[in-house]
Amino acid sequence: MAEFNLIDRIRRRIPARPDVALGIGDDAALLQVPAGRQLVVCADTLNEGIHFPPSTAAADIGWKALAVNLSDLAAMGAEPAWCTLSLSLPEPDVAWLDAFLDGFLELAALHRVALVGGDTTRGPLSVSVTAHGFVEPGRALLRGGADVGEDLWVSGTLGDAAAALALLEQGAPDALRQRLDRPTPRVELGRALAGIATAAVDISDGLLADLAHVCRTSGVGAEVELELLPASAALRDAVGPEQRRTFQATGGDDYELCFTAPVERARRLQEAADVLGVPVTRVGRTAPGSTVTVRDGVGCSWLPEKSGYEHFG
Amino acid sequence: MAEFNLIDRIRRRIPARPDVALGIGDDAALLQVPAGRQLVVCADTLNEGIHFPPSTAAADIGWKALAVNLSDLAAMGAEPAWCTLSLSLPEPDVAWLDAFLDGFLELAALHRVALVGGDTTRGPLSVSVTAHGFVEPGRALLRGGADVGEDLWVSGTLGDAAAALALLEQGAPDALRQRLDRPTPRVELGRALAGIATAAVDISDGLLADLAHVCRTSGVGAEVELELLPASAALRDAVGPEQRRTFQATGGDDYELCFTAPVERARRLQEAADVLGVPVTRVGRTAPGSTVTVRDGVGCSWLPEKSGYEHFG
Repeated sequence: MAEFNLIDRIRRRIPARPDVALGIGDDAALLQVPAGRQLVVCADTLNEGIHFPPSTAAADIGWKALAVNLSDLAAMGAEPAWCTLSLSLPEPDVAWLDAFLDGFLELAALHRVALVGGDTTRGPLSVSVTAHGFVEPGRALLRGGADVGEDLWVSGTLGDAAAALALLEQGAPDALRQRLDRPTPRVELGRALAGIATAAVDISDGLLADLAHVCRTSGVGAEVELELLPASAALRDAVGPEQRRTFQATGGDDYELCFTAPVERARRLQEAADVLGVPVTRVGRTAPGSTVTVRDGVGCSWLPEKSGYEHFG
Repeated sequence: MAEFNLIDRIRRRIPARPDVALGIGDDAALLQVPAGRQLVVCADTLNEGIHFPPSTAAADIGWKALAVNLSDLAAMGAEPAWCTLSLSLPEPDVAWLDAFLDGFLELAALHRVALVGGDTTRGPLSVSVTAHGFVEPGRALLRGGADVGEDLWVSGTLGDAAAALALLEQGAPDALRQRLDRPTPRVELGRALAGIATAAVDISDGLLADLAHVCRTSGVGAEVELELLPASAALRDAVGPEQRRTFQATGGDDYELCFTAPVERARRLQEAADVLGVPVTRVGRTAPGSTVTVRDGVGCSWLPEKSGYEHFG
């Protein structure tokens, strides 16, 4: 593995950031966190065949590996700054690496994130990213801040990525496949929600599973109105209503935000989202207790499989 | 993959650190870098069969995955603080995970490093760690600070890990195997060298290859006296002199430090190492030019294979 050639190839493409005193090329990077900010750190790995289909384009793998991490920062209300990349490749494939970097660095540039270090090693295709951001002390969006009687919101539309995965072999519509391969981390929305929302999580494992984390950590229950869950036109075209609801409620990989806010902040919240052009939808409310109840609009409750219930104590 | 059970299992074992405002369990960790310090960040991955033999005990894999990262912080003169861990496992094996954590957390406790986040995923066995530390601005040990005519030093002994790997099938002596499986990151020495040494690198790919990075970055050459390279008693017992020299000069995985310092600081440097009980040995000097020359003690130069020469421009 000609590790140093690959690293040089990566280094040449990294734009400068003034708070990076020393980037790629030494034993470690030297970085300057702004005075008065907390450092926000998350790490997520993508393995071939587990987190993305083997048919995924290298550029899309690069985009997604960074996107899932920026999504975690977004869910904290943090401003992204730096990342490290640990890349395992079966062989040193320069064309693959260049395409991977195209996607990775395209998203990095959108959020002015600097790649400051990492390593390239031989091994089954695997991408580990650790992302770093900043947040003002006391303003981070935590999972544990929700109270009973608040509105429950989600950004964007739900279920597209899961539908793309389910329809992969028969050829998913481009609009759905794009959502699976190039998720949009809701970074600007997360920043805007700090100070408005009381709790937030990003939807990586499915709405109900991720909402369950918020409920467990906050010590509240929740009621989700299935009819209110936002769906894309592409999803409505691609599958019937029952399958659509399952994807929306339980499908992973959407990387939208799920968050709570007091009822009286609904207008302020909606206006903040409108300014950013990011759709947000009220989909239910928090409730006493510790369970997530799903209402189907005709009065009865419906609990889909894989709802994340096993995570409750 | 019962990710959350594994994560809970990890979280229960993490001691608190006052600068960790929020550790494992949310979308990201919230951390406080001390005022006036630079953040030092590095990332290194270990893949089974590439970075450790499949026979390696889980506890040793845990130790080594953190050790190789702390070694990078040591080579910067940084004080370790936090790390993230991305762990890919073929299956959720609780006994394996517990043993892995035994080794990982044993080393973390020695250096008061807090594990603050990461993820567990299904995939071929792979361990990615990103480590974070602090350094006073201007005091970090860089690869590029060496000048012509300085002493060249190494810590500890060299070649043990490479010998252990070479002797693996016939059963390497315990003392050598221990060096391969449980390398000692020279964290305290690295801290002490900040302000004395002019350049440093940790020896992960072999002395000559890693020294070549220092020479290239600093714009100097180097002369290494083969007879001066420190060897353990176990290495001298295990192999003949020729093979020993090859392991010492080119063997990887020792995680000792290689560093340069002006001749007039030799005594101060030696005293600082003595206080810590870490052996250091002067093994050569920096020189004009851009090549690493190896002298065998009888007047001629000898260039072993895999000396890192291909990295020169």
